[in-house]
Amino acid sequence: MLNTPYLLFLGDAADPLAAKVAQGVKDWRPEYSIGQYRLENCNADMGLDDLSIEQAVERGVKTLVVGVANRGGVISDQWISVFEQALDAGLDIASGLHNLLRDIPSLVEKAERQGRQLIDVRIPTVDYPIANGLQRQGKRCLAVGTDCSVGKMYTALAMEKNMRERGLKSTFRATGQTGILITGNGVPLDAVIADFMAGSIEHLTPPNDADHWDLIEGQGSLYHASYSGVTLALIHGGMPDALILCHEPTRDHMRGLPSYALPSLEELRDTALTLAKVVNPAVQVTGVSINTAAMGESEALAYLQEMENRLELPAVDPFRQGAGRLVDALLELDEPSSK
Amino acid sequence: MLNTPYLLFLGDAADPLAAKVAQGVKDWRPEYSIGQYRLENCNADMGLDDLSIEQAVERGVKTLVVGVANRGGVISDQWISVFEQALDAGLDIASGLHNLLRDIPSLVEKAERQGRQLIDVRIPTVDYPIANGLQRQGKRCLAVGTDCSVGKMYTALAMEKNMRERGLKSTFRATGQTGILITGNGVPLDAVIADFMAGSIEHLTPPNDADHWDLIEGQGSLYHASYSGVTLALIHGGMPDALILCHEPTRDHMRGLPSYALPSLEELRDTALTLAKVVNPAVQVTGVSINTAAMGESEALAYLQEMENRLELPAVDPFRQGAGRLVDALLELDEPSSK
Repeated sequence: MLNTPYLLFLGDAADPLAAKVAQGVKDWRPEYSIGQYRLENCNADMGLDDLSIEQAVERGVKTLVVGVANRGGVISDQWISVFEQALDAGLDIASGLHNLLRDIPSLVEKAERQGRQLIDVRIPTVDYPIANGLQRQGKRCLAVGTDCSVGKMYTALAMEKNMRERGLKSTFRATGQTGILITGNGVPLDAVIADFMAGSIEHLTPPNDADHWDLIEGQGSLYHASYSGVTLALIHGGMPDALILCHEPTRDHMRGLPSYALPSLEELRDTALTLAKVVNPAVQVTGVSINTAAMGESEALAYLQEMENRLELPAVDPFRQGAGRLVDALLELDEPSSK
Repeated sequence: MLNTPYLLFLGDAADPLAAKVAQGVKDWRPEYSIGQYRLENCNADMGLDDLSIEQAVERGVKTLVVGVANRGGVISDQWISVFEQALDAGLDIASGLHNLLRDIPSLVEKAERQGRQLIDVRIPTVDYPIANGLQRQGKRCLAVGTDCSVGKMYTALAMEKNMRERGLKSTFRATGQTGILITGNGVPLDAVIADFMAGSIEHLTPPNDADHWDLIEGQGSLYHASYSGVTLALIHGGMPDALILCHEPTRDHMRGLPSYALPSLEELRDTALTLAKVVNPAVQVTGVSINTAAMGESEALAYLQEMENRLELPAVDPFRQGAGRLVDALLELDEPSSK
């Protein structure tokens, strides 16, 4: 879907958080991240070489990736001017912004003239099928959360990284805009038409080698009133063999829903398992991933130990500890005799 | 959304089943069903007056409703000719066909010239919000099924009819194309963008009188791998006070999924309740609706009695017995002291 490698556009990012897409690409796909492009007043820095468009082309870059959120929903003239230069120099442009590149006439015109692509990763470009529910070869692991934004993408990416380092066959499967920009392809599930949600995930995770693991990026939560349907379509379309429970322990309420408490990890485990067994009776919950960013080290470790005892599953913060133990648990699934 | 009353277009229906949309309108909204329009070789008959377009206009008809499925996915020239006449005479045209009216240039041109509407009810026309999960006044009942096409729409329509006959405040809320054509409005949920599914159902079922019941048309099944996400969005967006379990007892496997068995009614009850309680902890399963069309009378009655004993809930086939007992159970919810 996206041609690699990338020049990461940081624009005039107000702060590092505004450039979190660029940070994700740089963290998880350093081999795609050839350089960065910053405007004056940019308060983010990926530590990459600052390259002009021309320098980026010389270094083999194929796509300018918009790695920054725009302020006030407007793509500024200054940004557009850089994008026009990039198209003129032969680059594609990829963006996950709400405001679409394709809605800017000067970019459309230049892209057509140069034969380049404007890729708005929020918008599906494939006519996905209706899910067929058929069993398929290959293993799949899905991260499910007590809430939105609790670390599901991070967990799957960290597991993929660990598996690759160990020479194991694995592929991170992106289901959201940031994941798509990081890996260069995926399904923007929240923008898919209802009837085709599960089918889009079957399409994303096709039959594979028997010892290959797809690490599917989770979305939403079964317990989030706004997005739960997306989550269930992901569970049934993804037909996981393994579920990882993801949680952020300091959150007061469901994201964006002040009157909703988070479920316990046990509730999430039981509900997700019941629903996942509809398509794969052998599915198991194999681990717990906790985002302990808001905790000190000793508090975090104590909390993880408590979860590990309570749920009788490996409980880790992949940011602090890596995802090795979550991967170990997947591999044990492959060796039923060892259990 | 649709202007009433209707002229029901039966076209050259191959058999009565091909005209099931027209049958639904005639059965549930006889007051909208002024007449029928049939071509030669039509093998369906609603028992309504056969009217020309001109006669229909004289009788006050506002919309020609396409009440028949087209063969081979093609809207024939013969159909188009009738539709053109209808637009010329000042009627709107409403259709739930896969092939869209709006894709036929001669119809678009005539509709614009005459200031009439071409209404393809499969396509959403509203920008639905993201669900907010807020509690709202009024009561809501949702039919959930062990599978697709087990009688959920019929059950909700039969309950609405019974409540209206008893002078109770109620509204059937359509979530699919047939329901929308019958009632003149609703949400084509299977065509809504994933992120807005639950929000579209909140939009469909707004705050209402405290003693008003929305009877929400169910879609899909939590146990159907292709469509379960749609069902869960309906449960969370609809925030039901009461759930009716719907089932067709002679089905071998999930519709379109030969390798999937249907869940038991107990499994459906437990899973649907767990998920519905996320948004409304007070929700109850109040009844069971069984489609016994494939059974003889004594077999059907014995099966219903068995379900009633097993689930300790009123179990009826609303087609054979009416929906009165399902409505009685809703009213008992309103009077907690009587329990």
